[in-house]
Amino acid sequence: MAGDYAYRRLNKDDAVVLLVDHQSGLISLVQDYTPNEFKNNVLALAACAKFFQLPTILTTSFEDGPNGPIVPELKAMFPEAPYIPRPGQINAWDNADFVAAIERTGRKQLVLAGVVTDVCVAFVALSAREAGYEVFAVTDASGTFDQGVRTAALMRMQAAGVQLVNWFAVACELHRDWRNDIEGLGSLLSNHIPNYRNLMTSYFAREQAKG
Amino acid sequence: MAGDYAYRRLNKDDAVVLLVDHQSGLISLVQDYTPNEFKNNVLALAACAKFFQLPTILTTSFEDGPNGPIVPELKAMFPEAPYIPRPGQINAWDNADFVAAIERTGRKQLVLAGVVTDVCVAFVALSAREAGYEVFAVTDASGTFDQGVRTAALMRMQAAGVQLVNWFAVACELHRDWRNDIEGLGSLLSNHIPNYRNLMTSYFAREQAKG
Amino acid sequence: MAGDYAYRRLNKDDAVVLLVDHQSGLISLVQDYTPNEFKNNVLALAACAKFFQLPTILTTSFEDGPNGPIVPELKAMFPEAPYIPRPGQINAWDNADFVAAIERTGRKQLVLAGVVTDVCVAFVALSAREAGYEVFAVTDASGTFDQGVRTAALMRMQAAGVQLVNWFAVACELHRDWRNDIEGLGSLLSNHIPNYRNLMTSYFAREQAKG
Amino acid sequence: MAGDYAYRRLNKDDAVVLLVDHQSGLISLVQDYTPNEFKNNVLALAACAKFFQLPTILTTSFEDGPNGPIVPELKAMFPEAPYIPRPGQINAWDNADFVAAIERTGRKQLVLAGVVTDVCVAFVALSAREAGYEVFAVTDASGTFDQGVRTAALMRMQAAGVQLVNWFAVACELHRDWRNDIEGLGSLLSNHIPNYRNLMTSYFAREQAKG
Amino acid sequence: MAGDYAYRRLNKDDAVVLLVDHQSGLISLVQDYTPNEFKNNVLALAACAKFFQLPTILTTSFEDGPNGPIVPELKAMFPEAPYIPRPGQINAWDNADFVAAIERTGRKQLVLAGVVTDVCVAFVALSAREAGYEVFAVTDASGTFDQGVRTAALMRMQAAGVQLVNWFAVACELHRDWRNDIEGLGSLLSNHIPNYRNLMTSYFAREQAKG
Amino acid sequence: MAGDYAYRRLNKDDAVVLLVDHQSGLISLVQDYTPNEFKNNVLALAACAKFFQLPTILTTSFEDGPNGPIVPELKAMFPEAPYIPRPGQINAWDNADFVAAIERTGRKQLVLAGVVTDVCVAFVALSAREAGYEVFAVTDASGTFDQGVRTAALMRMQAAGVQLVNWFAVACELHRDWRNDIEGLGSLLSNHIPNYRNLMTSYFAREQAKG
Amino acid sequence: MAGDYAYRRLNKDDAVVLLVDHQSGLISLVQDYTPNEFKNNVLALAACAKFFQLPTILTTSFEDGPNGPIVPELKAMFPEAPYIPRPGQINAWDNADFVAAIERTGRKQLVLAGVVTDVCVAFVALSAREAGYEVFAVTDASGTFDQGVRTAALMRMQAAGVQLVNWFAVACELHRDWRNDIEGLGSLLSNHIPNYRNLMTSYFAREQAKG
Amino acid sequence: MAGDYAYRRLNKDDAVVLLVDHQSGLISLVQDYTPNEFKNNVLALAACAKFFQLPTILTTSFEDGPNGPIVPELKAMFPEAPYIPRPGQINAWDNADFVAAIERTGRKQLVLAGVVTDVCVAFVALSAREAGYEVFAVTDASGTFDQGVRTAALMRMQAAGVQLVNWFAVACELHRDWRNDIEGLGSLLSNHIPNYRNLMTSYFAREQAKG
Repeated sequence: MAGDYAYRRLNKDDAVVLLVDHQSGLISLVQDYTPNEFKNNVLALAACAKFFQLPTILTTSFEDGPNGPIVPELKAMFPEAPYIPRPGQINAWDNADFVAAIERTGRKQLVLAGVVTDVCVAFVALSAREAGYEVFAVTDASGTFDQGVRTAALMRMQAAGVQLVNWFAVACELHRDWRNDIEGLGSLLSNHIPNYRNLMTSYFAREQAKG
Repeated sequence: MAGDYAYRRLNKDDAVVLLVDHQSGLISLVQDYTPNEFKNNVLALAACAKFFQLPTILTTSFEDGPNGPIVPELKAMFPEAPYIPRPGQINAWDNADFVAAIERTGRKQLVLAGVVTDVCVAFVALSAREAGYEVFAVTDASGTFDQGVRTAALMRMQAAGVQLVNWFAVACELHRDWRNDIEGLGSLLSNHIPNYRNLMTSYFAREQAKG
Repeated sequence: MAGDYAYRRLNKDDAVVLLVDHQSGLISLVQDYTPNEFKNNVLALAACAKFFQLPTILTTSFEDGPNGPIVPELKAMFPEAPYIPRPGQINAWDNADFVAAIERTGRKQLVLAGVVTDVCVAFVALSAREAGYEVFAVTDASGTFDQGVRTAALMRMQAAGVQLVNWFAVACELHRDWRNDIEGLGSLLSNHIPNYRNLMTSYFAREQAKG
Repeated sequence: MAGDYAYRRLNKDDAVVLLVDHQSGLISLVQDYTPNEFKNNVLALAACAKFFQLPTILTTSFEDGPNGPIVPELKAMFPEAPYIPRPGQINAWDNADFVAAIERTGRKQLVLAGVVTDVCVAFVALSAREAGYEVFAVTDASGTFDQGVRTAALMRMQAAGVQLVNWFAVACELHRDWRNDIEGLGSLLSNHIPNYRNLMTSYFAREQAKG
Repeated sequence: MAGDYAYRRLNKDDAVVLLVDHQSGLISLVQDYTPNEFKNNVLALAACAKFFQLPTILTTSFEDGPNGPIVPELKAMFPEAPYIPRPGQINAWDNADFVAAIERTGRKQLVLAGVVTDVCVAFVALSAREAGYEVFAVTDASGTFDQGVRTAALMRMQAAGVQLVNWFAVACELHRDWRNDIEGLGSLLSNHIPNYRNLMTSYFAREQAKG
Repeated sequence: MAGDYAYRRLNKDDAVVLLVDHQSGLISLVQDYTPNEFKNNVLALAACAKFFQLPTILTTSFEDGPNGPIVPELKAMFPEAPYIPRPGQINAWDNADFVAAIERTGRKQLVLAGVVTDVCVAFVALSAREAGYEVFAVTDASGTFDQGVRTAALMRMQAAGVQLVNWFAVACELHRDWRNDIEGLGSLLSNHIPNYRNLMTSYFAREQAKG
Repeated sequence: MAGDYAYRRLNKDDAVVLLVDHQSGLISLVQDYTPNEFKNNVLALAACAKFFQLPTILTTSFEDGPNGPIVPELKAMFPEAPYIPRPGQINAWDNADFVAAIERTGRKQLVLAGVVTDVCVAFVALSAREAGYEVFAVTDASGTFDQGVRTAALMRMQAAGVQLVNWFAVACELHRDWRNDIEGLGSLLSNHIPNYRNLMTSYFAREQAKG
Repeated sequence: MAGDYAYRRLNKDDAVVLLVDHQSGLISLVQDYTPNEFKNNVLALAACAKFFQLPTILTTSFEDGPNGPIVPELKAMFPEAPYIPRPGQINAWDNADFVAAIERTGRKQLVLAGVVTDVCVAFVALSAREAGYEVFAVTDASGTFDQGVRTAALMRMQAAGVQLVNWFAVACELHRDWRNDIEGLGSLLSNHIPNYRNLMTSYFAREQAKG
């Protein structure tokens, strides 16, 4: 077993975040997370991208139709990001502008989330694996019809060498060491993990009481 | 069946909100809702109280100890509210200041939430019922150890004539008519129900497109 | 226990069906049933109303806004039904036209479903109980945010004397005897209960084989 | 609270068992229990009826059609029991022969199970309550479409004064005292509760080892 | 609603604890709690009885047979308690010694738990209600075959005026005020609620750090 | 990781759909999806086959016996499709006519669904993998006894290089670009995904309102 | 993907069944299946072994202690089978008699089930894989503490090349063709799959009706 | 399949236990196990380490901050163990002292558990795999935010050659043969598996009765 495995670890100098089709209409298809959980996870991943200053690419499918516009918070968080409204391609990798935007970053680690997991995420993930990228599918910032569909999609991606992660693992794998920015990471976690916020509240209340 | 039932309906001129023991430590006991769901529900109920300008009473148990301070957002939202740190009484109704604060409002409808459902909520609810109040237990802004405990507590309260509601029902029963403040209610819902926010996003995008 | 209970049984000459706020936008709030299950249940209840020629009343809330229009299938099934787009009242019972439409039917048994269970259904149910009606809340053609909210709403209605039913119980309680229309009921069940359809498929295949 | 409640306790001299529509086709509608669990529960209730020599009444609906014949094990266990194939009535209480068969037993406690819970069980239960009977709905030997439907049906019956039980509670409430027949009850439990059988296996292995 | 309800509140001078059939064999029948959860809940209730010095009565059914001996921890905790090995009665209330032991305490509030919920608990609860006692069924220190059986048993008891509680509610309702014994209650909670123990660990670590 | 993976992507010119044993009797064995969900998924996959004009092969096992005839909708949708009633082979791949029908299509991508997942689907999938085909098991249009069995079957297939998909992924991977037929795909989705239909309803209502 | 996979298919001339530690005491550790489901699955696998006349090997661990004797039905079904009560080895493969018994069969396909999945099954499976056997772990005739433990054990075995199956897949993969013994297989299925039995009941009732 | 797999089996002379970040604050993040289950599993793994006298290494992250101190029981059980409070590294493998402590043991099998699974466990596991170690992730003594996150983390580790185990499998794989210490292992199991304790209670009660 030893010697045959190389840990492809997220590196903030080599990672780019891809947010695919988080649109106000399409999100109503997501049923494997509750709406509150899913919203929190997506915004948490976006906050990671901001915090680590990762290049981020947004893409949508048919914003003018029933799929609806991209979630406004995402648009507002990344005003300068490449934004590729696809004219029709379902697999974003089939859109040359999208791939070009990735290539322009010169990065090889794709941190990928989208709606729905089995299509918008899986198709891009498999295409990117074929193209030689390291792919990190952020499973909890991606949603789909039900847990059975999710499981099948995760197994399909696992078999293709995609690494399955969650937003918190992305944040921690990128940050490496709390000392790089204690307050920054603490604030990121506190904003998106209520129990972590509670720990901090209790802690600082005690500290304050010490005088 | 007819004629024997009177609908005790929430009335914004007769309701007072009681938030019991939503403390940063105690909340870690809550396991029948996920942390994100519970946080959202509690803040949504608090937002209702603000929106309808209901008198609101906060109480806590042993803030200086392991239970931790009240969730800071709640303190910040109700800076002027009566705030009763109980010196030891588990059932807040056993604290004369708490009951007095309720009596001072002159109101008879108690909208009640807390941690944990089977103690901080149920005990107050049963005492208040005995004292002749109408009690509305906000089940989703109250949390406890597991779903079995919750079910037993709800059945105990139901048997005592407590009305079991959720924060959204509280908002709607108080508001009565959208025309009383369309934007206000819309904003309240949009802030705490992601799917409602998505509906509004899609809608206004279309309206704008009409231009 | 004996002698103290009267079975208020659905009677096709005394029942009226109320469909409240089954709108294309609001339905995305429903998370306690899967979308397919919920769609099937709502259409099955509507099919009951048609089959038993029950007077049916439709009402909606803000169709022109984010809530969206009524589900088109319902509108198409009841082209002549009283249709009350409420200008703002959340509790449909607060709308005089809605209550008047019920009164005009002269019927005393309300078969009620809507979105969401804890508001659009529960509020009407409680108001109607106070007004002396027999109320049958069709729990599976009504939906809401999660199962905890549903449970609380059902307990609140149970305590008010509302009878809790499902669409299949409505169909069977109204039909009373298969001989009243064997093919009609069989067709209704077959269209909305896949396993029943399968039973019929197997059966008629065998019958045919007998020739 | 005290003094206002009379415990209506199952009495083997006053109980009659009603098995309604346990038919080979209809059982495919049952989805709130797994097929193995449901089969075991129904046969366990039937075994109770045999063991306590309770009068038992079987009834079916349209055996010659898609609903299919009664489960053969039940027919075989009660060859002499009144057997009422209903020509069309959905509520078995609407069938005069069925009610007459009950009346002929002279008994006042109805132990009732069937398929499906919300119709075949609930309708009979409510009718029987109105007629002054004590009704014991055997919830785990009755099945229906899903757990939501079951919950609503149980709440409807609870509100009507029906006692909600399971087959094991029926067995124990009837038996009263192990000494009435230790081996008989032990055998009944061992045949239908695998963990009880295991306890007995372990026990007798030890006893034998003592020799 | 007001004025018609009296809160029967647990009182440590009027309560007696009944532990029914927590035997090493029978416990393998419990499937509605995991073994670890159930063990913790039962020992927690026993610890409450000790802490509040409540008279406690133990009873078992056929200890020498497959049901197995009482859980040794319970026997060890209450060496002086009345201990009634029933020769055969399934409902402990049918055993004169058991009822006499209760009567000798002169207390009117029965805090009751056992295995299984639908038989050993429910039968005693209903008998005791008929005899005029206030009954508090400790739902989480009682276990049974599955959640469906538990729900039915709870509904049956609710309808009979039994109050449904959990061990934590029992502890808190008896204790009334932390000041009666802060360390004692803290220790009781810490021993049986891991998250509470964690809160205390964090808290005292901070306090110590102040030094 | 890079360079070692080739994305075998569904291609409408190389895919053939295999529907195995969707028979009216056998479907009652399916318990890992609700009947409504399963029916919808199977018909959705069939609709994909029609929409993309994929060659489709139907096969059944013992239609004249208890397994029952093929679901009539499937037969009606593919009147010209090769239809292979197997005289006894459980693994359809053991039937020479079935394999020959596949070979005649000259296609190498098998889109496979059936009842039950662990037998009718898994056996064909593993045989086809051995024979050098690319296999896409449509997990949500295949059903079996429970979720544990499904998981084991999916893991067995995954280990054999089968790609695990769902009907929606099949549709999207085949369609590639909305512009190939916007209305066609929209209609397919709208017919089988209620929330998508709702999005379209809301959208077109707004468009119409624009006039 | 093609060409690189060989389907190791169960063959009744090369398979041997290993039943490990299905003992009356140990079975109480199984919590990932209900007792009824698990009992049925184990007996069904045993019935397969009988039906296909597969050599079968039984082994137990410490029968004279708390683990208890082997389930008597298994002992009775295989009176002539090698029966290896291990004096202490936890991994049965560490027992030379057990391995020798396998070797004496000359067979290379091990059909393996036991209690608990993560130890008695997984250890044997991994040892046997190392020794060059094809291993088929029968997941539903093996049980353990909870679903999380099961999942981890299945993933560990999958990674070692163990094929994950269920008893029904074993039966079907061995039988190959219904025509080899229609009645025999039908009877096996009917005895262990209630819904299959119901299909047969309905079918033969119709056939009989034809005359 | 044969010949290509080597079973890396836990060996008590080659294993070292790593307990990562089981801290009183961080544990409140664990939501995929109930608090009681998780506490039991962690202490059980620690008891294994003691029982087999395995070298054990403790590490924590920011004990003085909100994360809180290590669970006191763990500290107390391993007073002499290397204890590495990391000054900031999230992945313990990035801390040279931690890796050095492992290297000093000269052992190659890492038995690893921690909070949270997807970060503290997965990062160490992947780093250790790359460094050539055999890694055994103890899934049930590791916890995280929800089951979806856990599943993704387990799949990521599985793909990297990590063996997924539970504490009971660790104990049994290390012990090999009951005869090595029957009482010792029995006591370990009895302390952490309530149903095993019950088996022993019943057994010894019978033995004693023999006299």
